[in-house]
Amino acid sequence: MGKKIIVKENERIDDLGLKNLKIIQDKEGFCFGIDAVLLSDFAKDIKRNATVLDLGTGTGVIATLLCGKTDLSKVVGIEIQSEVADMAMRSIQLNELQNKFEIINEDINHIFNQLEKNSFDVIVTNPPYQKKNAGVINDKEKKLISRHEITATLEDFIKVSKDLLRDKGEFYMVHRPDRLVDILYSMREYRIEPKVIRFVYPNQKKAPNLVLIKGVKNAKPFLTIEKNLYVYDEKGDYTQEIKDIYHIKD
Amino acid sequence: MGKKIIVKENERIDDLGLKNLKIIQDKEGFCFGIDAVLLSDFAKDIKRNATVLDLGTGTGVIATLLCGKTDLSKVVGIEIQSEVADMAMRSIQLNELQNKFEIINEDINHIFNQLEKNSFDVIVTNPPYQKKNAGVINDKEKKLISRHEITATLEDFIKVSKDLLRDKGEFYMVHRPDRLVDILYSMREYRIEPKVIRFVYPNQKKAPNLVLIKGVKNAKPFLTIEKNLYVYDEKGDYTQEIKDIYHIKD
Repeated sequence: MGKKIIVKENERIDDLGLKNLKIIQDKEGFCFGIDAVLLSDFAKDIKRNATVLDLGTGTGVIATLLCGKTDLSKVVGIEIQSEVADMAMRSIQLNELQNKFEIINEDINHIFNQLEKNSFDVIVTNPPYQKKNAGVINDKEKKLISRHEITATLEDFIKVSKDLLRDKGEFYMVHRPDRLVDILYSMREYRIEPKVIRFVYPNQKKAPNLVLIKGVKNAKPFLTIEKNLYVYDEKGDYTQEIKDIYHIKD
Repeated sequence: MGKKIIVKENERIDDLGLKNLKIIQDKEGFCFGIDAVLLSDFAKDIKRNATVLDLGTGTGVIATLLCGKTDLSKVVGIEIQSEVADMAMRSIQLNELQNKFEIINEDINHIFNQLEKNSFDVIVTNPPYQKKNAGVINDKEKKLISRHEITATLEDFIKVSKDLLRDKGEFYMVHRPDRLVDILYSMREYRIEPKVIRFVYPNQKKAPNLVLIKGVKNAKPFLTIEKNLYVYDEKGDYTQEIKDIYHIKD
């Protein structure tokens, strides 16, 4: 369209391999990983015209992939870090998604005067994995907030989701298996009943290192554990399922 | 020792394949399955001289296997069904375990005048899997109580365990994965923190159908998900791990 999108010196543009969608990222900041790609795939069967919220959207990769994979009507991404939110806004322009994808630069705990309660069909979130004061601390503040529960805890992400989802609205999250008890306990506490869990394994010989969870607000209890998702096969190549998710052709 | 153990007409004696241990079971009643065997293996690293409680012991198979696999000092089995408790008592005589294995024929919710609170090092339990009024109902009352939450719920089993375990005492349970949220929620609620989960799969292509859980009373949160346990390999034979657990030699 001839309109110029500014890409700063410390940034790069990555192709998502899907419908020509792209993401601007800080070369030295927090770059998206396989968790974001797997979460967008896990949530890809949301209904047509769904209104979607991405809590802690970062550079907007999950929401952007959902724009490519689903027929959602609108997606709002909340991001506390202004520089990161600015990158996401420029990616939206780059992908010409302004008509359906909006960024709000705000703390997730302070968005209730900007968003209506009980209004979203779907919430997706890839929250920081580390508890505050746990794990190795990175130097850069940007990475810190993306990786550690500095400004919002896991419980905050779930509580805010419960307030913003409509009745029977769907919640999709990716996290670490070592936080599974925290996740399931808080979800039930806030009436987002866990309905589907899928564990992600580096390969068939290792323990899982990611967990995908789907919950439904105010649903009855009954949990399904789906078959495992393996990233690499015994030869060290991507499994067919991962190739399909990444749209990699043999 | 020459002493005669009565085996009734409707009963059979099964060899556990370990140190000549045997179990008397009702041919048409609830017979132990792989879940009991896997749970006793999952709990086999309990410390020397541990005092152990088996809640809902049935014919006593888990407690009997633990007598063979560990150096426990004492194990108490609680069983509400008098006929089943009677079979367990005769198995104890058969195995000459009277010095360390005792059966109490009582409802788990009414054992506090017979057992001291905060006194057990370890609790093992293979509770009924089905919620009350869920699933196909068997004709026989005996199977009913063993399979369905008629007299005690999952929450009861966890609450009673919390009362009877000593501080940092260990809790081991086998259950169905579809109850995982109920299990983890109640455990945390009653301060038996879930520390280890291991899923059991029929084979590598299917979803898990059993889950082994270890909790520790008053422990700090941190969950480890162990690598999967597969029952059958791709040819339909037992995996090596299952052969080892069942002491089957190739």
